[in-house]
Amino acid sequence: MALVNLYSDTQTRPTSAMRTAMAEAEVGDEQRFEDPQVTELCSRVAALLGMEAAVFLPSGTMCNEIAFRLHIRPGGDEAILHRRSHPIIAEAGGPAAFAGAMMYPLDTPLGMFTGEDVRRALRRPGDRYAPRSRLVCVEQTTNMSGGRVWPLEQLRDVVEAARDAGLRLHMDGARLMNAVVASGVPAAEMTRGFDTAWLDFTKGLGAPLGAVLAGSAELIDEAWRYKQMLGGALRQAGIVAAGALYALDHHVDRLAEDHARARRLAEGLAALPGVTIDPSTVETNIVIFEHDDPGGLCAKLEAHEVRMGAVGPRQVRAVTHLDVDDDGIQRALDALERVSAR
Amino acid sequence: MALVNLYSDTQTRPTSAMRTAMAEAEVGDEQRFEDPQVTELCSRVAALLGMEAAVFLPSGTMCNEIAFRLHIRPGGDEAILHRRSHPIIAEAGGPAAFAGAMMYPLDTPLGMFTGEDVRRALRRPGDRYAPRSRLVCVEQTTNMSGGRVWPLEQLRDVVEAARDAGLRLHMDGARLMNAVVASGVPAAEMTRGFDTAWLDFTKGLGAPLGAVLAGSAELIDEAWRYKQMLGGALRQAGIVAAGALYALDHHVDRLAEDHARARRLAEGLAALPGVTIDPSTVETNIVIFEHDDPGGLCAKLEAHEVRMGAVGPRQVRAVTHLDVDDDGIQRALDALERVSAR
Amino acid sequence: MALVNLYSDTQTRPTSAMRTAMAEAEVGDEQRFEDPQVTELCSRVAALLGMEAAVFLPSGTMCNEIAFRLHIRPGGDEAILHRRSHPIIAEAGGPAAFAGAMMYPLDTPLGMFTGEDVRRALRRPGDRYAPRSRLVCVEQTTNMSGGRVWPLEQLRDVVEAARDAGLRLHMDGARLMNAVVASGVPAAEMTRGFDTAWLDFTKGLGAPLGAVLAGSAELIDEAWRYKQMLGGALRQAGIVAAGALYALDHHVDRLAEDHARARRLAEGLAALPGVTIDPSTVETNIVIFEHDDPGGLCAKLEAHEVRMGAVGPRQVRAVTHLDVDDDGIQRALDALERVSAR
Amino acid sequence: MALVNLYSDTQTRPTSAMRTAMAEAEVGDEQRFEDPQVTELCSRVAALLGMEAAVFLPSGTMCNEIAFRLHIRPGGDEAILHRRSHPIIAEAGGPAAFAGAMMYPLDTPLGMFTGEDVRRALRRPGDRYAPRSRLVCVEQTTNMSGGRVWPLEQLRDVVEAARDAGLRLHMDGARLMNAVVASGVPAAEMTRGFDTAWLDFTKGLGAPLGAVLAGSAELIDEAWRYKQMLGGALRQAGIVAAGALYALDHHVDRLAEDHARARRLAEGLAALPGVTIDPSTVETNIVIFEHDDPGGLCAKLEAHEVRMGAVGPRQVRAVTHLDVDDDGIQRALDALERVSAR
Repeated sequence: MALVNLYSDTQTRPTSAMRTAMAEAEVGDEQRFEDPQVTELCSRVAALLGMEAAVFLPSGTMCNEIAFRLHIRPGGDEAILHRRSHPIIAEAGGPAAFAGAMMYPLDTPLGMFTGEDVRRALRRPGDRYAPRSRLVCVEQTTNMSGGRVWPLEQLRDVVEAARDAGLRLHMDGARLMNAVVASGVPAAEMTRGFDTAWLDFTKGLGAPLGAVLAGSAELIDEAWRYKQMLGGALRQAGIVAAGALYALDHHVDRLAEDHARARRLAEGLAALPGVTIDPSTVETNIVIFEHDDPGGLCAKLEAHEVRMGAVGPRQVRAVTHLDVDDDGIQRALDALERVSAR
Repeated sequence: MALVNLYSDTQTRPTSAMRTAMAEAEVGDEQRFEDPQVTELCSRVAALLGMEAAVFLPSGTMCNEIAFRLHIRPGGDEAILHRRSHPIIAEAGGPAAFAGAMMYPLDTPLGMFTGEDVRRALRRPGDRYAPRSRLVCVEQTTNMSGGRVWPLEQLRDVVEAARDAGLRLHMDGARLMNAVVASGVPAAEMTRGFDTAWLDFTKGLGAPLGAVLAGSAELIDEAWRYKQMLGGALRQAGIVAAGALYALDHHVDRLAEDHARARRLAEGLAALPGVTIDPSTVETNIVIFEHDDPGGLCAKLEAHEVRMGAVGPRQVRAVTHLDVDDDGIQRALDALERVSAR
Repeated sequence: MALVNLYSDTQTRPTSAMRTAMAEAEVGDEQRFEDPQVTELCSRVAALLGMEAAVFLPSGTMCNEIAFRLHIRPGGDEAILHRRSHPIIAEAGGPAAFAGAMMYPLDTPLGMFTGEDVRRALRRPGDRYAPRSRLVCVEQTTNMSGGRVWPLEQLRDVVEAARDAGLRLHMDGARLMNAVVASGVPAAEMTRGFDTAWLDFTKGLGAPLGAVLAGSAELIDEAWRYKQMLGGALRQAGIVAAGALYALDHHVDRLAEDHARARRLAEGLAALPGVTIDPSTVETNIVIFEHDDPGGLCAKLEAHEVRMGAVGPRQVRAVTHLDVDDDGIQRALDALERVSAR
Repeated sequence: MALVNLYSDTQTRPTSAMRTAMAEAEVGDEQRFEDPQVTELCSRVAALLGMEAAVFLPSGTMCNEIAFRLHIRPGGDEAILHRRSHPIIAEAGGPAAFAGAMMYPLDTPLGMFTGEDVRRALRRPGDRYAPRSRLVCVEQTTNMSGGRVWPLEQLRDVVEAARDAGLRLHMDGARLMNAVVASGVPAAEMTRGFDTAWLDFTKGLGAPLGAVLAGSAELIDEAWRYKQMLGGALRQAGIVAAGALYALDHHVDRLAEDHARARRLAEGLAALPGVTIDPSTVETNIVIFEHDDPGGLCAKLEAHEVRMGAVGPRQVRAVTHLDVDDDGIQRALDALERVSAR
């Protein structure tokens, strides 16, 4: 009996059809813009996100790292972002170590913040002692805050506050398509007013690797320098870009199933002793619940062939994706019931 | 009638006696360790702070910047410090831009924090995604939080938490001697367990420029590389080091007068309409009070030859020092009364 | 009639058999060390290079960039390497921009240098004004100097000089297997004494993407932090690692064919008017010849469906690889003859 | 009998009159632009160098380090400069470690180069693999190449080549006034076309510390951010700026005496066995001669109360300045004769 792997949606494996698409793809040298898969993927993502141009990169982390380098100038610029967002907690300190960015972490609820929060975080313009407020980063959906979807109005409010202060905006869209499917709001509406935004293909979309960073033609041209500098310039990348194209065609609408399963899992969890969660807060494919002993619980679940992750001193995270079906959810709930009993 | 300059204790001017000491000082090339003033100053400060060695630098900011470079390794290390501390708000973003440090700002009260606050801020050891917790910075006294003195027990508690986690500790002692005079605790007791600490001579001590960073012989040897790299390596620095030596001899005990005047100022402020302050919280030479219109108030005071600084949307700061005598405090209170009168 | 693409061996496309190997590969999350292809590839490359451990990365450039970060410390360290080596000419300035490395470029002949050259480049130990000599980089084979193979004795001589001075050594093995096949010297002999070395799979070996960096267990563990920081941490990387494994099994010995074809091309070139080349200097798959008008020549060849690259004001480079057979060489020579006529 | 210190012109000690000027100087907080000495010094240097604005800094090294940060952008920019120039050999690797600059060292004779040398060093514009050529640095006079004066025409030629390629230009004027006095060419003529240039006051000009960096108003405004970031922002800096002002008034013309003494020293040296030097190449106050055993020679001289410096495997440097009079030169020559005998 196979593992029900709810550890993360990064655990998806390419389907047989996706593998075929990759194996048959015509490829070329992407650095010479001669790879047809990469070319098509970039132009589709640029269109999807309402941007002029896009560049294929090995990972979403590289999208963030390059975006920081594009926006943060060397003279002490500062980024305003949530304290539990990816650039702070999961990029090995790259935004400071690589781009020299000062961090202004916000502790607002649910991983989201408002235009007013941005305004309160601004440094005084022209002050040569303080860092220079420069960049606002938004994570759509809010991974470590439970996969919440930023409402369009709230995004607009943040964009307005940032623009008023002359700041740049960057959207970490690791799970942007989950937000799109859950809310019905088109991606390009969500990214409106942002300077850069990206999509990841290794999460719910199920491709083995790759992400695409989009922005103005000028920014993407500059991004190519950093792609080269960081070692993200590939050769016959079409092999993997073909998987991403396949995902765009076949794995977007089905994210709704992941969301329904996550909700069902949350509802089951809410009925268990020792677990705290409000199922109505589960909007996409991420379920974060409170438990007294996250590590212990996960170890016990593992013994029942169910994998979740401890993500805080009192938090467990479970993520649905295309390798977890209804039966998997049922097995996860059965296992939870057994290990929670008495 | 001269300005009563309460803007900052950095505004002190060298006294006539200090100028004579500087003018008569025997000097040499400090880079060859041939300047007797610099040599003596470094050994006195090292002894005062209970450290093996010390290095003379042009400013306290350079002490902080070099300390960050000494402690923060290039692979994504993180510093834990208060959100209103000097490296975050007043070094032009240098800790990230120059040392590549990720910042973990704490929002604890009064600019101070506890061992437990440090423990809660720690990243999981060995986690290659997160920044690596590496450094705890303490500011003694807490400048922008009102010149509060970290109690010795609280310093010990923070040292213990940091040491338990294998972290380095750095003390920004811009006003350490104010803390020493106010509390009666020797400086070397306060810095015990810290890897680096420094004294500034341009604040209450009244010298025109210079600060001294102290630490282990090995760290100070490495600090010399950064002193050279940053352009802090001087030549006949004894001219100014002589001023710092004079300050150590003549301007330490008198800080008690600044503290008494600050308290008197706070008491006068407490009686004014539109001002909020609890005079019992004024422990050293910094008075921060709440007011509805900091900028407006400061402008009006300036017209009465009294200078204070707006340091927040509702905060005004006044700092006593050796160029402000009892009469200056009285004039400041008179001016405040006049401009506050409905 | 297809293009004879001698522009670079990076232009190789995966063969049908390699595609099948990739399509059928069992994969997992390489970040959790659960991808069997990546695991096997890393252990095979580590063994091949005589190192303890290895890490899979998207590109050879990332191998170099991470190696610089591993070896170069933040206090002004300097790397000694040839002026035409990849980190200087083809990584967008990354060694300085990302690792903060000072560069000491050598102008020695053929892209190679000796132990004595290293000794002459050393800074005085303990000098806090100069950069600190820290790293020696060797490129095997010497790409822009004509694919020359560093003789084993010369490598040993450089290792000895570097070791005597306490320096680290790094080998850029973009075409290391070409050197191995051409010389008959095992790879692990060539890398002996080096701290880090890497193999690229996108060049003569014909895989679509990927490279593997090897070194001590401790260095590779640290490399993982930078892999994460730079965005080189992938997910189901086995899809592409399978291509690299296939290449190790099937595309190494056949490099001898590329070398023979390069020599044949060089011999043909030597007979042409306006071309200067000594065919006996062609040891591997790279042919660099002198011509008065490199750009013009390449443009004319392109019109005959033959692609070479202008790599200097008087230099043209042609590179053989598995997509160029005997017929391709003949067509290239025919085209050269036609465009050189009269 | 006092030491004849020819080790460097940085060894000068402030004269009695200069000390008086410093002791009596009216001072203020230079960060608030309230220090009259600093204000006057900056405006005089800006005028002298034909620039819009200037900023006072603790050292010439900081002038260079800040200039690199002003000109070098974070995306892999490269500086073209002589291999024996100060930013490469004497700033602890700061240009790479702090500004991320790639270095393109030139090995041209006498520490100088031509417009054609610059052109040959240029990277191809728009190439995203190579570093981006960005900055040309010139050292006037050429310290480690023997205090040579760049002829005005050669400076113009370099400016033209750099401008044609869209590059920035920076002049390290550590000994610019020596060049001015030796050549009769005004400083502002020498700096024409340069974006930034600076004067040092601790060398031949004899002040204890300080240097002034000049450039456009916009660049100097940005330089203030880095001055703050690096810890170069001082307080009552007028104490030392007064020494620099005194030097401008009293120590410029007398540099001619240093030059005459250096020539006399060189002539004496030329007559000694085991010494190679052409006295006609001594244009300013630096004398570099060849000797088989620089370290041994310097040690022997030290025993005779004469100090020079070994600056290479076969080179000794002697520098004249205001603390070395005719008698000192005679004593140096006598000592040389004694230690060279037999």
